[in-house]
Amino acid sequence: MIALDANGADRGPRNVAEGGRRSGVPVTIFGPAAELEGFDNVVDAPVGIANDEDPALAVRAKPDSSIVQAARAVKDGKASGFVTSGSTGAALAAGLFHLKRMRGVHRPAVAVRLPVPGRPVLILDCGANVDQRPEWLVQFAYMGAAYMEAVHGVGRARVGLLSVGEEAKKGTEEVVDANRILSDGPLDFAGNVEGNDIARGELDVIVTDGFTGNVALKAVEGTATMVMRTVSDTVRSGTISSLGGLLIRKKVQRLRTELNQDSVGAGILLGLRGVAFVTHGDATPVGVATAVRLAHRAVEERVVERTERALAESGALASVSAPAVSVGSGS
Amino acid sequence: MIALDANGADRGPRNVAEGGRRSGVPVTIFGPAAELEGFDNVVDAPVGIANDEDPALAVRAKPDSSIVQAARAVKDGKASGFVTSGSTGAALAAGLFHLKRMRGVHRPAVAVRLPVPGRPVLILDCGANVDQRPEWLVQFAYMGAAYMEAVHGVGRARVGLLSVGEEAKKGTEEVVDANRILSDGPLDFAGNVEGNDIARGELDVIVTDGFTGNVALKAVEGTATMVMRTVSDTVRSGTISSLGGLLIRKKVQRLRTELNQDSVGAGILLGLRGVAFVTHGDATPVGVATAVRLAHRAVEERVVERTERALAESGALASVSAPAVSVGSGS
Repeated sequence: MIALDANGADRGPRNVAEGGRRSGVPVTIFGPAAELEGFDNVVDAPVGIANDEDPALAVRAKPDSSIVQAARAVKDGKASGFVTSGSTGAALAAGLFHLKRMRGVHRPAVAVRLPVPGRPVLILDCGANVDQRPEWLVQFAYMGAAYMEAVHGVGRARVGLLSVGEEAKKGTEEVVDANRILSDGPLDFAGNVEGNDIARGELDVIVTDGFTGNVALKAVEGTATMVMRTVSDTVRSGTISSLGGLLIRKKVQRLRTELNQDSVGAGILLGLRGVAFVTHGDATPVGVATAVRLAHRAVEERVVERTERALAESGALASVSAPAVSVGSGS
Repeated sequence: MIALDANGADRGPRNVAEGGRRSGVPVTIFGPAAELEGFDNVVDAPVGIANDEDPALAVRAKPDSSIVQAARAVKDGKASGFVTSGSTGAALAAGLFHLKRMRGVHRPAVAVRLPVPGRPVLILDCGANVDQRPEWLVQFAYMGAAYMEAVHGVGRARVGLLSVGEEAKKGTEEVVDANRILSDGPLDFAGNVEGNDIARGELDVIVTDGFTGNVALKAVEGTATMVMRTVSDTVRSGTISSLGGLLIRKKVQRLRTELNQDSVGAGILLGLRGVAFVTHGDATPVGVATAVRLAHRAVEERVVERTERALAESGALASVSAPAVSVGSGS
């Protein structure tokens, strides 16, 4: 059973619920019952948390909000994971309060699997933290690799560290330190990689701080959209090429689907003691269904336990005596 | 007269010299005379600086290297600006040593004009500095706007500050501070913008730190290349669509040219007391010629003086009593 938060989505709660139905996975829907007639397993939870609220404050102030109820359902064992199309910050805050961080994990991360043809790549952190520390980056590497191996069937994940040059000395002090630590660890580590490696299809995981990751993710998505639209406009602008455009339409349509975020899933919150996914705010029912199925698979494949084990074996966990990190505010 | 450094280019010195010839602008070529037979105005300078050398050390240790000679030619008034296809770090170091920083400028920046159809956008810093300070970001904004207005005929440049959300409070502490300072200044300031705004075509300048800018620039270029190649592969993979592909070939070829970095130019080093451009390492003669023509135009349009004036009027200059910043190492 996956807990599905129906509030906060750009296309409204029915669209989210429809995604849950299409997933084929049993779901409990937390959302406004008045707008969800016709759907089964609805828990009336009309209160949402908006993108412009402070996530940590809002999660504390609104214990009856749908995202908090969904997270609590996982904590209480009534659901095995949660999915939301609402605020990533609120999902993170609710996850941190109710699922808790994995023991020894400094910070959770938002990971997004980018639809690179042939070899989709997981990029993390995409915005849970705007700052960076070498030990966070190192943990992100192990968390990302464990996720790709557990849920997406990658044999041994190849992991790159995003920087401004391939040489190990290039980048900020934090990146240089993280490179050194990862080079000595058990990962299949490709060393520093650059922005043009994101779409190259030679990596399974790209590790970076949440500021750079968020910018890079949106830069890639925005560029793919711009180029596809420019190709269409260019083709339509002449008689002969318009005829050509008709002949390629079906193929290009399939390509659009392949490059569309909806078809590969959602953001995953890694580093929590539970399974949590966040879709694009404007996800279609297809996107929501993909996220629900991925959450289900993550539970089945015991991604949390496998990530904990990978981190423990890597020696990357914070020592138990280290002071606890306070709840991040998300972005 | 533009000083053209012919060493360090992926396609060799003759390719650079050919770009200089095609530019139609008078150039003095600094490179290995033995490989440059047939070209006029060659100063024999066979020593280059490689990408993997420490730029600041190499520039000091190799006063006869071609990039140092090109920078010195500008300093001595024998050339009005320099262009190189070699190491950006070496160009920066040579520029800092011989052209010097503008008075009151904290750090120079590498700015690149991205070929967004309809409205190319200048992004800076793309890698001169891997760290960030609010006052650096603020100066980058004025430097970028002055360049676009002086050299690319933009009436009043619209400037965005790259972050992880549109709200002024989103981002790192440095970005939040820079947003506040820029909001109070005379720029046409769009506030925080996100990664997907880079290719949207609604801005003239995007300001960010050199780490994020370098990653974002390469992410955009890599994604555009990947999508164009995927479109071609997809179209070629079927009989009907292949026929369609033949009909659109001419248009797509033109689009490729439009999206190609070569057609819009090169990296510009802003914040120096002189005109300096760095092309892609693998620039074709077309790319080199574009850079040489842009350098010529920057000189004609007095971009250095205009940038100094814009910075002075904005109140963004460091006070003269502030301690001098040491030479950055470049990336």
